Amino acid sequence: MPQLGLLPRRAWAALLSQLLRPPCASCTCAASCHSQVAEAVLTSQLKVHQEKPNFIIKTPKGTRDLSPQQMVVREKILDLVVSCFKRHGAKGMDTPAFELKEMLTEKYGEGSGLMYDLKDQGGELLSLRYDLTVPFARYLAMNKVKKMKRYHVGKVWRRESPTIVQGRYREFCQCDFDIAGQFDPMIPDAECLKIMCEILNGLQLGDFLIKVNDRRIVDGMFAVCGVPESKFRTICSSIDKLDKMAWKDVRHEMVAKKGLAPEVADRIGDYVQCHGGVSLVEQMLQDPRLSQNKQALEGLGDLKLLFEYLTLFGIAEKISFDLSLARGLDYYTGVIYEAVLLHTPTQAGEEPLSVGSVAAGGRYDGLVGMFDPKGHKVPCVGLSIGVERIFNIVEQRMKISGEKVRTTETQVLVATPHKNFLQERLKLIAELWDAGIKAEMLYKNNPKLLTQLHYCESTGIPLVVIVGEQELKEGVVKIRSVASREEVAIKRENLVAEIQKRLSES
Amino acid sequence: MPQLGLLPRRAWAALLSQLLRPPCASCTCAASCHSQVAEAVLTSQLKVHQEKPNFIIKTPKGTRDLSPQQMVVREKILDLVVSCFKRHGAKGMDTPAFELKEMLTEKYGEGSGLMYDLKDQGGELLSLRYDLTVPFARYLAMNKVKKMKRYHVGKVWRRESPTIVQGRYREFCQCDFDIAGQFDPMIPDAECLKIMCEILNGLQLGDFLIKVNDRRIVDGMFAVCGVPESKFRTICSSIDKLDKMAWKDVRHEMVAKKGLAPEVADRIGDYVQCHGGVSLVEQMLQDPRLSQNKQALEGLGDLKLLFEYLTLFGIAEKISFDLSLARGLDYYTGVIYEAVLLHTPTQAGEEPLSVGSVAAGGRYDGLVGMFDPKGHKVPCVGLSIGVERIFNIVEQRMKISGEKVRTTETQVLVATPHKNFLQERLKLIAELWDAGIKAEMLYKNNPKLLTQLHYCESTGIPLVVIVGEQELKEGVVKIRSVASREEVAIKRENLVAEIQKRLSES
Repeated sequence: MPQLGLLPRRAWAALLSQLLRPPCASCTCAASCHSQVAEAVLTSQLKVHQEKPNFIIKTPKGTRDLSPQQMVVREKILDLVVSCFKRHGAKGMDTPAFELKEMLTEKYGEGSGLMYDLKDQGGELLSLRYDLTVPFARYLAMNKVKKMKRYHVGKVWRRESPTIVQGRYREFCQCDFDIAGQFDPMIPDAECLKIMCEILNGLQLGDFLIKVNDRRIVDGMFAVCGVPESKFRTICSSIDKLDKMAWKDVRHEMVAKKGLAPEVADRIGDYVQCHGGVSLVEQMLQDPRLSQNKQALEGLGDLKLLFEYLTLFGIAEKISFDLSLARGLDYYTGVIYEAVLLHTPTQAGEEPLSVGSVAAGGRYDGLVGMFDPKGHKVPCVGLSIGVERIFNIVEQRMKISGEKVRTTETQVLVATPHKNFLQERLKLIAELWDAGIKAEMLYKNNPKLLTQLHYCESTGIPLVVIVGEQELKEGVVKIRSVASREEVAIKRENLVAEIQKRLSES
Repeated sequence: MPQLGLLPRRAWAALLSQLLRPPCASCTCAASCHSQVAEAVLTSQLKVHQEKPNFIIKTPKGTRDLSPQQMVVREKILDLVVSCFKRHGAKGMDTPAFELKEMLTEKYGEGSGLMYDLKDQGGELLSLRYDLTVPFARYLAMNKVKKMKRYHVGKVWRRESPTIVQGRYREFCQCDFDIAGQFDPMIPDAECLKIMCEILNGLQLGDFLIKVNDRRIVDGMFAVCGVPESKFRTICSSIDKLDKMAWKDVRHEMVAKKGLAPEVADRIGDYVQCHGGVSLVEQMLQDPRLSQNKQALEGLGDLKLLFEYLTLFGIAEKISFDLSLARGLDYYTGVIYEAVLLHTPTQAGEEPLSVGSVAAGGRYDGLVGMFDPKGHKVPCVGLSIGVERIFNIVEQRMKISGEKVRTTETQVLVATPHKNFLQERLKLIAELWDAGIKAEMLYKNNPKLLTQLHYCESTGIPLVVIVGEQELKEGVVKIRSVASREEVAIKRENLVAEIQKRLSES
């Protein structure tokens, strides 16, 4: 990706801390936007409202249009993400925007209430997809696919509860990469983390860190701390909020709202403040309580192997084993991870501050089996890139740096200085189009030359082909470079070749 | 686009006539699929059904997944379409999948009943978008944009009434190009037709024809034939069915169901069998009845100018003025058009047979004004490419020709002939990825060399990098060409450069 609006380090750090608000509870991919955008939307709604109270023209709550300017940024980000997925051998696929409602129920834990249902118009009960993972698992089970490495870019929809003022989109784009199949442990898992590093490096978003944990370690921790098994998932949801709530508030939720014994909560509290590298894994393998739990031991053993592979991939220093990472979605069964951008310290001695999740994922070995009539399992591991949030960051950065992007790719404007030259322009432009050259003309019978040249300047078109009375008489056309204002006359029959030559040189 | 599965002319013609069934009544873009696909879906549903009666795993009625194989074909088609749109200077944009229901009502005529509504979950009343045109008009009005040339590729949803067995998708992709703004007459309109020609030529779908008419001529014809003005739109819907219903059935609908006087219907019948080139326009300009109607005269005058521009673009012979073309959607106000593929005659003397619509569009000067609080109008003209139908044609053609497409782009497999070389493979592959090389490895600790080579052959990977004991000792790796089976040893440090060299040569 071209270096879109690179900022000085300090301005960048300030921007990040402003932009990256805590993500929502059960979100795979950081769907939030920042409140500035939301306020702008709200303001524009109000404006229309004032003009004509009964006729509000707007997009639905929590959704937005993408302008051509925004589309260019979006596409550059998506191109970078998709080319990384392809570099790792992934195939593309697509699923419908909605699924049978029953396919989606009991997959998301506390997030299930946020699903968009379609109206019952006398057919099947349908819901818009809530993520791309469950449709992928449904696809694997339905087609009896046992092995597949695929990526999927698509919109998902969540009725995030509060209002748009809090700045969360209800329609957002996800970019998922998943590896399905029975393989030797931790090799695909390590590749997922490698991919996250490649993408975050490629996007030049600044320092980042990937927190890693394992659902089996989370569950083992709950078990040795004395959490009743029936409360595992709900306590997991509470722990998942630790990146945006203080420990004392999470503790209060667990004890007062979810009925956990205070001493059990405090035991959990001791663990969840631990984070570190492979040495923490070693330490936990020796932990007198945790090492007594079979599940936790398996998880820790796998993490140890994972760190070995991450070292070979040269990315171990980007990974932090973090016992507070829990992930809200029900379907994870093994390794889980979440990438956060780091707020670069502005003063010496300050610790880097985590400012928001931009990618996440994990292993879900049981999900496909939930769809298979015979319960056949297909182990899976994958990741999701939170492109909305990344998009907002890059967009804001470009605004601050004042960088302009072209929203069209037009190479040539076909122009004339004289009246009654529409026919010549039409013939010329058709020739260019047929030769694959990106060309425009003004849709006027007799545009002024100055208007035509201004159009090139304002839209970034580099070349003008000019045909007038003199040129027509001599069988030539003029090619003008917009930047240098130089003009040369060339033979009409050499026009296409000459333009192609110039475009290949630039 | 590469020549996807070109077939002998005769096989192609037979295929086309099998594939291209009449499209639906109010469809902009030929949403239909052919019944084979539908039957396959149905069969697979029944199969699951038989295995476990209470657990049907399927996609919703009228929708489908796209497999990696299908995605490759889809993306090639979309690439060609979008690059044509960009060649003509269009900007990209996007709108949400759903709109406020009130934004979509009273825009589509008889199609309105086919809208998917979302369930009222305690907020706004929403509907999935039915096309990309109305959201575009809403965008223009909401942002007070007076001039814009944009393209939009996205899914739309229509609850097409009958069953999936009739082979019509309820979720399908549209590719739209539109020019909004007040310009001199027929210049943007001619460009839309040029674009349709470029795309259909580029896709190599065989012969095609673009039928052209004008809503003002249709309405003028109704007026001079004696249709009451209140019946204009409903009679227009009937006429629109002429490409898939015989005249006598359409006449019956108009007379028996819609209460039109038989002699009025017969007068219409005389007109709607007329089709031809610019000479038919001249003839209608002299028509004693039609030439008395102001609206019709305006339409005919514009068509005459349009033909002049189409001649300059070199595409006039692809265009047919067809008085039976009516277009189902309510919002058209001027020129309308529809591209149909032609069944190449298999015997001399046979006339080419129209076998189905693959692109359509027209002018809609009033739609934006319907959204503007003050009714400010923005004239628009545009087109929609029926990519689903084109996709089915290309896919079937490839199946018949037996052509294989690669579903991944992997260039290198990192392999080993020996046990315990996982670490070396991991180091090697990370180096390749970091250099931007598309590389895979098998996710096994100790895969067999033969398995690894088979994987290359079955997935089309051209190069293998092999590291074993001998190579490690000598500080080299082997590069093997899968096609020629030749192997050369090169220094480990030259690996990336050597692979890049080979890939740039191939």
